[in-house]
Amino acid sequence: MVKITFCFESEAPSICVMAATNENILQTARRENIAIDAPCSGNGTCGKCRIRLLSGKVESTSDLEDGWYLACQTKPLSDIEILVPNTATAFHTGIRTAELTQAERAQLKTLPNSGFEAVSLKLCEPSLDDTLPDNERLAAAIEKKTGCKTVFTFHAFKRMAWILREEDFSIQVLGERKNGIFTVYDLVPSGISAPMCALAVDIGTTTVCAVLTELTSGTLLAKATCGNAQLRYGADVINRIIEQSKLGAERLQKAVLEETLFDLIEAVCKDAKINKSRIFRMSVAANTTMNHLFLGLFADPIRMEPYIPSFFRTQSFCAKELSIPIHPDAQILISPNIGSYVGGDITCGVYASGLWKNDELSLFVDLGTNGEIVFGNREFTVACACSAGPAFEGGDISCGMRATDGAIDRCSINKDTMLPTFSVLGGGKPVGICGSGILDVISELFTCGIINAKGDFVREGSRIVRDQYGTGRYVLAFAEESATDSEISITHVDIDNFIRAKGAVYSAIDTLLSAMDMDESVLQTVYVAGGIGSSISIKNAIAIGMLPNLPVENFRYIGNSALSGACAMALSDKAVCEIDELSQGMTYMELSTQAGYMDSFVAACFLPHTDAERFGGAR
Amino acid sequence: MVKITFCFESEAPSICVMAATNENILQTARRENIAIDAPCSGNGTCGKCRIRLLSGKVESTSDLEDGWYLACQTKPLSDIEILVPNTATAFHTGIRTAELTQAERAQLKTLPNSGFEAVSLKLCEPSLDDTLPDNERLAAAIEKKTGCKTVFTFHAFKRMAWILREEDFSIQVLGERKNGIFTVYDLVPSGISAPMCALAVDIGTTTVCAVLTELTSGTLLAKATCGNAQLRYGADVINRIIEQSKLGAERLQKAVLEETLFDLIEAVCKDAKINKSRIFRMSVAANTTMNHLFLGLFADPIRMEPYIPSFFRTQSFCAKELSIPIHPDAQILISPNIGSYVGGDITCGVYASGLWKNDELSLFVDLGTNGEIVFGNREFTVACACSAGPAFEGGDISCGMRATDGAIDRCSINKDTMLPTFSVLGGGKPVGICGSGILDVISELFTCGIINAKGDFVREGSRIVRDQYGTGRYVLAFAEESATDSEISITHVDIDNFIRAKGAVYSAIDTLLSAMDMDESVLQTVYVAGGIGSSISIKNAIAIGMLPNLPVENFRYIGNSALSGACAMALSDKAVCEIDELSQGMTYMELSTQAGYMDSFVAACFLPHTDAERFGGAR
Repeated sequence: MVKITFCFESEAPSICVMAATNENILQTARRENIAIDAPCSGNGTCGKCRIRLLSGKVESTSDLEDGWYLACQTKPLSDIEILVPNTATAFHTGIRTAELTQAERAQLKTLPNSGFEAVSLKLCEPSLDDTLPDNERLAAAIEKKTGCKTVFTFHAFKRMAWILREEDFSIQVLGERKNGIFTVYDLVPSGISAPMCALAVDIGTTTVCAVLTELTSGTLLAKATCGNAQLRYGADVINRIIEQSKLGAERLQKAVLEETLFDLIEAVCKDAKINKSRIFRMSVAANTTMNHLFLGLFADPIRMEPYIPSFFRTQSFCAKELSIPIHPDAQILISPNIGSYVGGDITCGVYASGLWKNDELSLFVDLGTNGEIVFGNREFTVACACSAGPAFEGGDISCGMRATDGAIDRCSINKDTMLPTFSVLGGGKPVGICGSGILDVISELFTCGIINAKGDFVREGSRIVRDQYGTGRYVLAFAEESATDSEISITHVDIDNFIRAKGAVYSAIDTLLSAMDMDESVLQTVYVAGGIGSSISIKNAIAIGMLPNLPVENFRYIGNSALSGACAMALSDKAVCEIDELSQGMTYMELSTQAGYMDSFVAACFLPHTDAERFGGAR
Repeated sequence: MVKITFCFESEAPSICVMAATNENILQTARRENIAIDAPCSGNGTCGKCRIRLLSGKVESTSDLEDGWYLACQTKPLSDIEILVPNTATAFHTGIRTAELTQAERAQLKTLPNSGFEAVSLKLCEPSLDDTLPDNERLAAAIEKKTGCKTVFTFHAFKRMAWILREEDFSIQVLGERKNGIFTVYDLVPSGISAPMCALAVDIGTTTVCAVLTELTSGTLLAKATCGNAQLRYGADVINRIIEQSKLGAERLQKAVLEETLFDLIEAVCKDAKINKSRIFRMSVAANTTMNHLFLGLFADPIRMEPYIPSFFRTQSFCAKELSIPIHPDAQILISPNIGSYVGGDITCGVYASGLWKNDELSLFVDLGTNGEIVFGNREFTVACACSAGPAFEGGDISCGMRATDGAIDRCSINKDTMLPTFSVLGGGKPVGICGSGILDVISELFTCGIINAKGDFVREGSRIVRDQYGTGRYVLAFAEESATDSEISITHVDIDNFIRAKGAVYSAIDTLLSAMDMDESVLQTVYVAGGIGSSISIKNAIAIGMLPNLPVENFRYIGNSALSGACAMALSDKAVCEIDELSQGMTYMELSTQAGYMDSFVAACFLPHTDAERFGGAR
């Protein structure tokens, strides 16, 4: 055993741990719950777990320079001291919170349908001749006013005797009226404004987003976003499940709860000046793996044939069961899954899109590490999932990064000079490039004839650099133009990876439609959702053959539709029922068992496609 | 501010705290949650908070000798160091656990009526062609076997995926079948013995007792008793409520939960070799103040006119709401109260006595700090409470102590020699005298003509010692005969205190019967319950005029009847309903507003009574 001292570039105090010499530094860090980013989960490919050796000896296959190593490729040979840079720890900060549009805010206000209400009461004070106990006195007054029997949450029961006397038996009762029962959540002085809140949470594999609204009015109170702290256990769901097996369900659950959600709750409540115990209801939209890890459920069966999750349909738990610091009896609604790889984020997203209630045939495409496709209308819905890999979120891309500050998110290239023009999230010099930026660059490179259908570089210029084997790369920013003093470029390998990702999506769409004996021509609307989806250029996505070649006006950005669906669940019982029904009616199609899927995928791994006619003919 | 260092005669590490000089040492100890016994709650009367000054200066009205002081009468004048002797800290240990009799064990086995059962299931294993999620697969199998819809506790839901695969889909489901719903509490391998347990708890002001039984068979698994750790906040309910106001509900709740009940749960589970999470149901019998403090409810209104508790009727909470370390979804049933001073211990006790279902008119007498009397039959029941004070439990008695090891519990006195013969709990030399012992001594002193009807000493002898004013005391053990090297005696003041206590009980009985236009002659059976009740001499209790003058065979000891009633609630839904109904039918009579009560009390404060005819004429 040796001692590893982790020092942090941030102000965090250093941590000493015992480690075995046959364990690499990333493994030790994960075991000891020290956060080091590793989206590739220790394959040595993402380069995000760079650490610097300050003292001691190591054995490594990744000797970078100046004492830098990849933690996942390096084992200690003696007691060592290492520096963990901010880039390895700040991976889930700096994520941008998209403001809700006016239309989205207005939409929220149409939702409330949950039975929550505030009831003002003036009770008769007890006396020696009127000795009803407090709970019966209060229940009688509630029944008189609402016609409902009363049930007390323990939180309200404990506060009852005190607040009744404090307020001279004149109070407001905050609660939920349902099926002839009035459930008391809290008691407050009369005459004050007493908002009752709903929290909607979208738990993405990468990003977690929370929206706080007022339960009775649907008024938006606050919104916050941050990275999922589980990121340090791998970028994709499979690696997360593997880490759960190794480290235990509590560890992964703690990462998404204590280290992610609780911070968001703190943030939205502070922003809205609301006491956390005023959150009476919460909903969660998450993919199947994320909702299992969130609940602390054993997720291994999801990744092992025959891929069986613990549940499909809508589940309801309460806050105290998950130790979530809101009202202890707040209902936590978990949106329903369709299959192991089409989860509650998709049922919520499809619900928000409206696809399920229209006559016209439409497509719902959610672009993320997992690409999910839903096709149908109010008569039927069919869903499938394809593994796009992490390229859309900047993974498997040499200078890729998530859509956080410093990322190049949009780009155009001058056909003649081949010089790039790009925008950087948060402004300033670029740090890397995110999914929507990569999509733009590849589309522009192809449109400008700089790369061919296979992604090979076929032109030369000041921005085209070739390595010793003649393989090209396109430089977006030279070292002196970047924030990191390192070149930011798109390599041939990056393009290959991205083409496979877009090919997976397009072939999934193609296979799904073919299986229904239809083709793209039947599609009235294509709803594009997902982290990458909200900011991509549709024109470019069609140009590279990722989305079907339809008029641009047939596409609708719907942004974070999972979050919109979660808001509906949080505010409305009607929405909860509709989403559960929607999930019950949705058919899951397993792509891998569909004849023709592999052929379709291979055909789609060209720019735009081997059958270029589909995209308006060769350029 | 000064520093107080508490050193302990036990092996506990010493504790340093900051203290204000206007605060006495007991107040400081309570504020800092340091346990020092003080049944009189700091009045300077019980002498239990004796501490020894090791260094520093104090100001005290209680300078005993050799540096000993009463903590409640002593304030620091400088930094001080004090020794806390075992007598001041070990107050809630050494309490004896009464074994259940064969008849009581047999009675338990007649009770089970709760719907809990173990269901063995062999499920079809999932495959690519049969992809039902685990919860639906299991629910379908349960429905097929029981005809019930399934609800999962979160505890079972979390274990489900793992145990199904671990046991190749062949398992036992432990749960509760009720109203067409089967609630799954746990999943275990098939073929193993899997007891499901019920815990019944009697939370007395002084003593807490727990009984663990098997839910389906009623088999006794274990029993344990200990002192209520709230004792350090005062011996009676009023002082406990006052301390709750000062220190907060959490502190008093923590004392009875973490420092008392949790230890008992640990003890019974260890004894029975049962995992704590196998306790699926729990019941609590406690007086009104104790159940309020147990739940963390604001108890002040109980002691303030018009004396209104938070609740009367049976309440049900769940273990996770109270953080009790048993199955998180275990129902915690709180037995119903009748009034602020007739609580769930009495409704449980009356239930266990059977008084409520017989034709004959009977009396139920619970002897404790509070004396509760219930009169009636299956047609009606009337209850009242009287404040007997702590004398029955050894309080307000110079050498009094609780019924723990070292207490003189029975005594007789030779009429001629006036020498005592006594038994000591746990054997050995006596430490003090408990309620049943005091009762015997006073009865014997009176019967032997050593004291007169007013309690004055009227004979002389080797065991009668008189002080400078001629006031006598009776010595049970001289210093050299006792375990503490101090004389153990009964003083004239002790006798006075005890006479007031017995007078309160007798006059309550008398007033209650008179109010119903009846007298003792209607009584077929008198059930005697309570801590002191289980071991007293009925003959002596009649002789001093505490209990009605009926043939001894009309009395029935029923021991800890509150605990028996709690066992019934823990094992049987029928009992829960019956106890709630019983409580609804019981009329509470406020003695203080009854004409004649004070006269009756004054008349009863003689040995045996001013109207000696009631007790067979003057002796």
